Amino acid sequence: MTATITGLRTFDIRFPTSADLAGSDAMNPDPDYSAAYVVIETDAPDFLAGHGFAFTIGRGNDIQTTAIDALSSYVVGRPVDATLADLGELWKALVHDSQLRWLGPEKGVMHMAISAVVNALWDLRAKRAGKPLWRLLAELPPEEIVELVDFRYLTDALTPGEALEILRRAEPGRVARTESLLRNGYPGYATSPGWLGYDDDKLARLCERAVADGFTQIKLKVGADLEDDRRRMRIARKVVGPGVRIAIDANQRWDVGAAIAWVRELAEFDPWWVEEPTSPDDVLGHATIARAIAPVKVATGEHVQNRVVFKQLLQTGAISYLQLDAARVAGVNENVAILLLAAKFGVPVCPHAGGVGLCELVQHLSMFDYVAVSGSLENRVIEYVDHLHEHFVDPVTMRCGNYVAPVAPGFSATMRQESLDAYAYPDGPMWRVR
Amino acid sequence: MTATITGLRTFDIRFPTSADLAGSDAMNPDPDYSAAYVVIETDAPDFLAGHGFAFTIGRGNDIQTTAIDALSSYVVGRPVDATLADLGELWKALVHDSQLRWLGPEKGVMHMAISAVVNALWDLRAKRAGKPLWRLLAELPPEEIVELVDFRYLTDALTPGEALEILRRAEPGRVARTESLLRNGYPGYATSPGWLGYDDDKLARLCERAVADGFTQIKLKVGADLEDDRRRMRIARKVVGPGVRIAIDANQRWDVGAAIAWVRELAEFDPWWVEEPTSPDDVLGHATIARAIAPVKVATGEHVQNRVVFKQLLQTGAISYLQLDAARVAGVNENVAILLLAAKFGVPVCPHAGGVGLCELVQHLSMFDYVAVSGSLENRVIEYVDHLHEHFVDPVTMRCGNYVAPVAPGFSATMRQESLDAYAYPDGPMWRVR
Repeated sequence: MTATITGLRTFDIRFPTSADLAGSDAMNPDPDYSAAYVVIETDAPDFLAGHGFAFTIGRGNDIQTTAIDALSSYVVGRPVDATLADLGELWKALVHDSQLRWLGPEKGVMHMAISAVVNALWDLRAKRAGKPLWRLLAELPPEEIVELVDFRYLTDALTPGEALEILRRAEPGRVARTESLLRNGYPGYATSPGWLGYDDDKLARLCERAVADGFTQIKLKVGADLEDDRRRMRIARKVVGPGVRIAIDANQRWDVGAAIAWVRELAEFDPWWVEEPTSPDDVLGHATIARAIAPVKVATGEHVQNRVVFKQLLQTGAISYLQLDAARVAGVNENVAILLLAAKFGVPVCPHAGGVGLCELVQHLSMFDYVAVSGSLENRVIEYVDHLHEHFVDPVTMRCGNYVAPVAPGFSATMRQESLDAYAYPDGPMWRVR
Repeated sequence: MTATITGLRTFDIRFPTSADLAGSDAMNPDPDYSAAYVVIETDAPDFLAGHGFAFTIGRGNDIQTTAIDALSSYVVGRPVDATLADLGELWKALVHDSQLRWLGPEKGVMHMAISAVVNALWDLRAKRAGKPLWRLLAELPPEEIVELVDFRYLTDALTPGEALEILRRAEPGRVARTESLLRNGYPGYATSPGWLGYDDDKLARLCERAVADGFTQIKLKVGADLEDDRRRMRIARKVVGPGVRIAIDANQRWDVGAAIAWVRELAEFDPWWVEEPTSPDDVLGHATIARAIAPVKVATGEHVQNRVVFKQLLQTGAISYLQLDAARVAGVNENVAILLLAAKFGVPVCPHAGGVGLCELVQHLSMFDYVAVSGSLENRVIEYVDHLHEHFVDPVTMRCGNYVAPVAPGFSATMRQESLDAYAYPDGPMWRVR
C-alpha cells in the first residue's frame, strides 16, 4: 500500500503578547504573536504528521489561515513517499500555479501560506527520516540540494552550476562541522533587552543579564524618538561595555534621508548593524543608506518577500548581513536558494527569529548553512528572543548564548496540543476570558 | 443626522473565461477572470453605495474575498462625509495598521484588499458628487491632491513640495484638456488580437479588425516558443503594416539573460515595447534588460506591488512606460502617488487593463493624469480588451480606438446585479451547470 496524504488541518493560534509590550518596536507597538498553524496528516502506519505555520502578529491571522486551507487540494491525495522525495517539484507546483500566482506573485499572504505547507512537509520528511531537519539537509548529496531550488529569476546572479560548486566545496568539512555543532552549538544574539516599550531600568537590567547569559551581541529597537534612542544606546553601551556588539533595529520606520541622518546620530555608540532602516522593498534605498552610513552596516530580511529581492540586495551591496525568515519566503526550498545566494556573494546569514516558533525553525537553516553551504560561523548569529518557547514540543535550548543543536527528529515546529487548545482564536479559553 | 457607513458586503464572482482561451499567455494558460467584489453601504437618504473589486484570475478569489471582508471593521461605523472627505487618512489607517501590515507589508492579498475598499469609497464619493471619478479628481485643488498621497518611502524621489509643483504647473490647462477629452476621448491600444491560444488565422483576422477599428497600437503575447513568436510577429507586422505599433508581452516568462536574447530575436519586427520581460520584483533585472535591448523599450506594472517598487523602476531608468494597475496597489490614493512619480521622471503612464472591469477603472486614472498631472497624451495609451464589459452598469465605450470619457457619476465599477447573481462562485447558475 502506498501511503497517501490524507488531510491538511489549520488552526488560528494567537498569544496575547500585546499585554506586556514584549515585541514592541517603532512600527509594531502592540503585536499579538500568532501562528496560522497547519498539520498535514497521512495514512502511513507511522502516525507521523507534518507541522508548520505562518507567523503573523495578530489581526489577519484568520486570512493567513484561510490561505493555507486553500492549498489543501494541492497536497491532499498525493503519495507520501514520492512527494517528500521531490519537494522541489511540489514547491514549483504551489508557487507557479497559474491562477494562484496572481495573488502575489511570490509574496505576501499566498507566499507565506506556501511557506507553512512546504515547511510542514519538511517537518514530516525529517520526522520520517528520524533526523533533525538541519542534519537531514546537511547530509543530502550536493546534486540533490541543487534540485530543491527553483533558479527562475536567479540565473543572472547564481546558476545551478555555481550552486553545485559552492556545495561541493563545503562537502569535505561536513563531518567535522557537524561534530563541532553538536559539541558547541551555534551562536545567538539577544533581542529581549531592547524592546521599545521597556523603561531604562529594565533595559539596563536585561542588558546585564544578556551578557551574564553569555551573549556577545544584543539588539535595541530604535526609530521612534531620537533623544530616547541616544539615551538608551548610551545606557546599553555603558552596561555591556565596548566588547559586546549592539545592533539597532528601526523596523522600517524611516525614509532614506531620515535613516542616514538618524544612524549618524547614533554612530558614536558604535552600532554593529542597523536593521530594516526603510521599506523592505526598497533595494536602492538600502544601497544608498549603506554607502552613506559606512562603516556601520545594513542588515535586513524579515520582511523581504522572496529570493528575487534578496538577489538584488546582494547584487547592489546593500546588505552586509542577510536576515532570512523561516516563514515569509516559501519555506525551506526558497531558503536554501537564499543561503546559496548569500554564499555566492560572501554575505553572512543572521536569521530573523523571535515571534512564535521562529527560533525553533531558523536554527535548522543556520546549522545546515554552517555544515553544508557557507561552512563558516564568522560574523554569523541567530536572533534569540526568550518567549513562547514553552508552547513547543521541542523548544530551542540555549547554552552560554549558543543555540544547542537539536537532535529530535523534525523541524522543531510542533506546538503542544495544550497550547493549540488554549490559544485558539477566538474561542480558546485564553481568549474567551478577555 | 450624520450618515454612517453601515455595511461592507463581498461577493466571489468568477467568469469561466478559460473555456475559450481569451486571456491566455505564457504564464497564464487558463485564467478564469474573477472579481473579489465589494459593496459599501450607508444609511444616507441618497441610497448610494460604493462598489469596488480586486481582480484575480480564478483560484484564490475566495482568499481575496476573505481579505476584503476582514477590512469591514475598519470602515463600518465611520461617518460618511468625514471619511470620504479625507480618504488619505483612511488609506493610512488601512495600509499602516500595525498588525495587518505584517501580512505584506503593502503587497499581495492584503494590499489588493485595501485597493478594493479604497476604490469603492472613491466610487461612492464620486457618485455622491454626481461626477465621474476622473473629473472629480481633476477638479480638486492641487493641495488637496497632495494630501491624498502617503509620501512615506518616497521622499528620496518625490517630496510633497515637488508634487505640488507638478500639479500647479498643470493647473492652467485643466479646462482646455477636459474639453478635449470630452470631445476626442483618450487613446487605447488593442490586446485582443494577440492571445497565445489563438491560431494564425484568428491572429491575422483580429489584427486586421483592430486596425479597422482605429487602433494605432496592438499587443502580442510572447515567450512560450521563440519560433512561434517570430512567425506570429511576422504575420502581425505584415497585416498591420509599418505604421501601427506592436507591443510584445512576455508575462514574466524569462530570466534576465533569456529576455535579452529573446527580444533581440524579435527586434527585426520592430516591437514598440516589451512588457514584463521578467519578475516584477526584479528592478535591477529590468534595468539590465532595458540597457541591453535598446532601442526597444521596457514596460511593466500590472504586477508591481506598490509605489516603492515603481519608484525604483523609475530611479534606475528601467522602464520607459509605466503600466499602473487600478486594483493591485492600494487604490486611487496610491495610483495618484504613482502618477506623480511618473510625471516627475517624465515617463508616460500606459495602464494595464483587460481582465474584468480594469478598463472601466483605469480610464479614470489616465484621464485624471492628462487633465491634472502630466498634461500630456504623448505616447500614452490605455490597454483595451473587448470582453466582459457587458457585466457593468457603465461599461467603457470605444470610438475609433479611443476611450470615450465617462460622464456617469462614479468609478464605473458597478457590476450589474444579474451578473453578480449569475457568476457567483461556486453557487451561481453559470457555475452550477459546470
